[in-house]
Amino acid sequence: MTVDVPVPAMEITAGEYAARLDAVRHKMEKQALAALLITDPANLYYLTGYNAWSFYTPQVLFVPAEGDLIFFAREMDANGAFRTSRLPVDQIIGYPETYVHRPHVHPFDWVAYKLRKLGLIAAAASGYVGLEMDSQFFSPKAYRALFNAIPEWNFVDCFELVNWVRVIKSPAEIELMRAAGKVCTAAMNTAIEHVRVGARQCDVAAAISAAQMAGTSEFGGDYPAIVPMMPTGVEADTPHLTWNDRPFNAGQGVVIELAGVYRRYHTPLARTVMLGKPSEQLTNVADAVGEGMTAVLETVRPGVEARDLAKAWNWTLAKFGLEKPSRIGYSIGVGYPPDWGERTISLRTEDETVLAENMTFHLIGGMWMDNYGFELSESIRVTASGVEQFTGFPLELIIKED
Amino acid sequence: MTVDVPVPAMEITAGEYAARLDAVRHKMEKQALAALLITDPANLYYLTGYNAWSFYTPQVLFVPAEGDLIFFAREMDANGAFRTSRLPVDQIIGYPETYVHRPHVHPFDWVAYKLRKLGLIAAAASGYVGLEMDSQFFSPKAYRALFNAIPEWNFVDCFELVNWVRVIKSPAEIELMRAAGKVCTAAMNTAIEHVRVGARQCDVAAAISAAQMAGTSEFGGDYPAIVPMMPTGVEADTPHLTWNDRPFNAGQGVVIELAGVYRRYHTPLARTVMLGKPSEQLTNVADAVGEGMTAVLETVRPGVEARDLAKAWNWTLAKFGLEKPSRIGYSIGVGYPPDWGERTISLRTEDETVLAENMTFHLIGGMWMDNYGFELSESIRVTASGVEQFTGFPLELIIKED
Repeated sequence: MTVDVPVPAMEITAGEYAARLDAVRHKMEKQALAALLITDPANLYYLTGYNAWSFYTPQVLFVPAEGDLIFFAREMDANGAFRTSRLPVDQIIGYPETYVHRPHVHPFDWVAYKLRKLGLIAAAASGYVGLEMDSQFFSPKAYRALFNAIPEWNFVDCFELVNWVRVIKSPAEIELMRAAGKVCTAAMNTAIEHVRVGARQCDVAAAISAAQMAGTSEFGGDYPAIVPMMPTGVEADTPHLTWNDRPFNAGQGVVIELAGVYRRYHTPLARTVMLGKPSEQLTNVADAVGEGMTAVLETVRPGVEARDLAKAWNWTLAKFGLEKPSRIGYSIGVGYPPDWGERTISLRTEDETVLAENMTFHLIGGMWMDNYGFELSESIRVTASGVEQFTGFPLELIIKED
Repeated sequence: MTVDVPVPAMEITAGEYAARLDAVRHKMEKQALAALLITDPANLYYLTGYNAWSFYTPQVLFVPAEGDLIFFAREMDANGAFRTSRLPVDQIIGYPETYVHRPHVHPFDWVAYKLRKLGLIAAAASGYVGLEMDSQFFSPKAYRALFNAIPEWNFVDCFELVNWVRVIKSPAEIELMRAAGKVCTAAMNTAIEHVRVGARQCDVAAAISAAQMAGTSEFGGDYPAIVPMMPTGVEADTPHLTWNDRPFNAGQGVVIELAGVYRRYHTPLARTVMLGKPSEQLTNVADAVGEGMTAVLETVRPGVEARDLAKAWNWTLAKFGLEKPSRIGYSIGVGYPPDWGERTISLRTEDETVLAENMTFHLIGGMWMDNYGFELSESIRVTASGVEQFTGFPLELIIKED
């Protein structure tokens, strides 16, 4: 029943890891970077396979233009980092425990000292050193520690360098996302089944979370970068509310946004459940969003621009007299809390990125109106000639009139 | 069965919110701060009640020495922030969607512009403006945006100012943590029940997560700041591993660390389950940790220093020929991903903080040995004369020989 060995088609091989690093170094060369410091947990996972809930204390991967990668983490985490990371143990270094959560020192003071002791400062002093200036889990204090301790280095923003390498998925990654899609289907079915009048919101969240983590008999689930969100009733006009312990009432609409996750690869999905007869207003919005999503899906193919998807959406919505100020989606793949987006391509009218095969997106038709809301989303892959949807739910409002 | 209205003893009243702000301003005055910019989601929740999974895009609370607080968030989140926050709607401002995830601008460029337009720069230009320099979700890019856009302000690190105000809990907060303790008991009982030979790790994680989120019939659960961690077998020598989809095997030890959460208040708890007969080595470590934890619990009372707890632990461990380089605990309360610690008091030999009534801690007896590990932890309150434990599990290794 359980899968005890990795499914070969999904295996990220040594060759694929090497190709990822090559792609990163190619971009580094184009951006004139002599070294790169990686702090985003998703980027760390992508380049090394390292996977643990250790990102609440500082950690950083040193990527020189040439030579060995070195991963720095808190000592207790570094000791076992080889268990999930592909890096050899001598490329994993722990900083002392006494640097954790202290006002007058920072772990990166020690990291800088260690880089100097290892003779790794000089090689990068002739060029620029890239930082992930807007990465989660990289604080101004961490930045200042590096800046003060390594005056030889010219720090520049790398502008999501690794994130951009991640944008086009390999065949193995697509298989991982298809597995995530199966977990997602199970979780959404659970959600639709459990959202009912009288059920406490927290109990439905519990059922969804269990479905996400258990996954299927073939593909055991992983934790999502974002917990189930389910803005309900009048609060459904606000996208990122989680839940409380009150029961659902008849006449409420419930927006459910969740993701299926398999080995950190995410396929998010949103649907809206109406507990009772929907208002004409809500029906109208649901129709508009369904039609808008159809128009977007019909537009997806290699060669079109990200903004073309936004335009297809806007034109359809305009026919219904509606508009949506926020982007209608973003690139997805590996995710860690607090976000499953890749922070690269945004589907909006300003984004001119040309779509290519094996890009993957979360398309979001979310309408946050006054005192109600409707959301319907899809996770998709750009195929050679069109689109693949990772799940197969109808593009409709779900009405439960029991 | 369900509690539809807040339990009065747990209600954070308007008066309590006002007292929190007074305490923050008192500290601001001592630190010569004319204003403070709050980015830590736990601190935002503490001061305003704002609670949503919106922290993956920048948000900040402006706290001037005098006058209205102003909360800035992404437009789609700001629109509904009044639903959980106590701030009046005119003190909640949304930044435009076009500032989200773009390489050449940052939302705090716009926040700075808006502060200027509102005439709020000048009042703080005569003093220092505190930043949470090591807060999660405050990036170097965000820092640089503020620094460049408001040259009049002298930015300084506030050194976890609000976190330090949070250290001593009010009676209402203690009630919230007792409720979290009940959720925690339910979750740990679920974990102990489900960890068995042949069960997939992911299915046990699913059961634990469901128990955390469902909570009890009286206290509906909330999401934990950290997902269930369960390093298993030889991997139990590493603290922050989550899970995979392989089954538990006979002879494995499983370290379970989880938290009960109620309205964002956390009580973490760790126990170790042995599937089969424990080795002499493991039994010895378990005995040492049990005795060490007892010694720490007996030391807790107002007036002792944080380091006295670490010393009580170290002396006991030394009798068993063991030592633990990491801190044995930290202050707890409100938590958001990725961490349920308050990042203030650490229980280690360097920390001279004097314990006071209604401080709350997570005491951690974690021993990460070579190829195995043992963890046992307790969440506690400092009482007028000693200690209150939020849960009641024996301080022992749990052996399942079925």
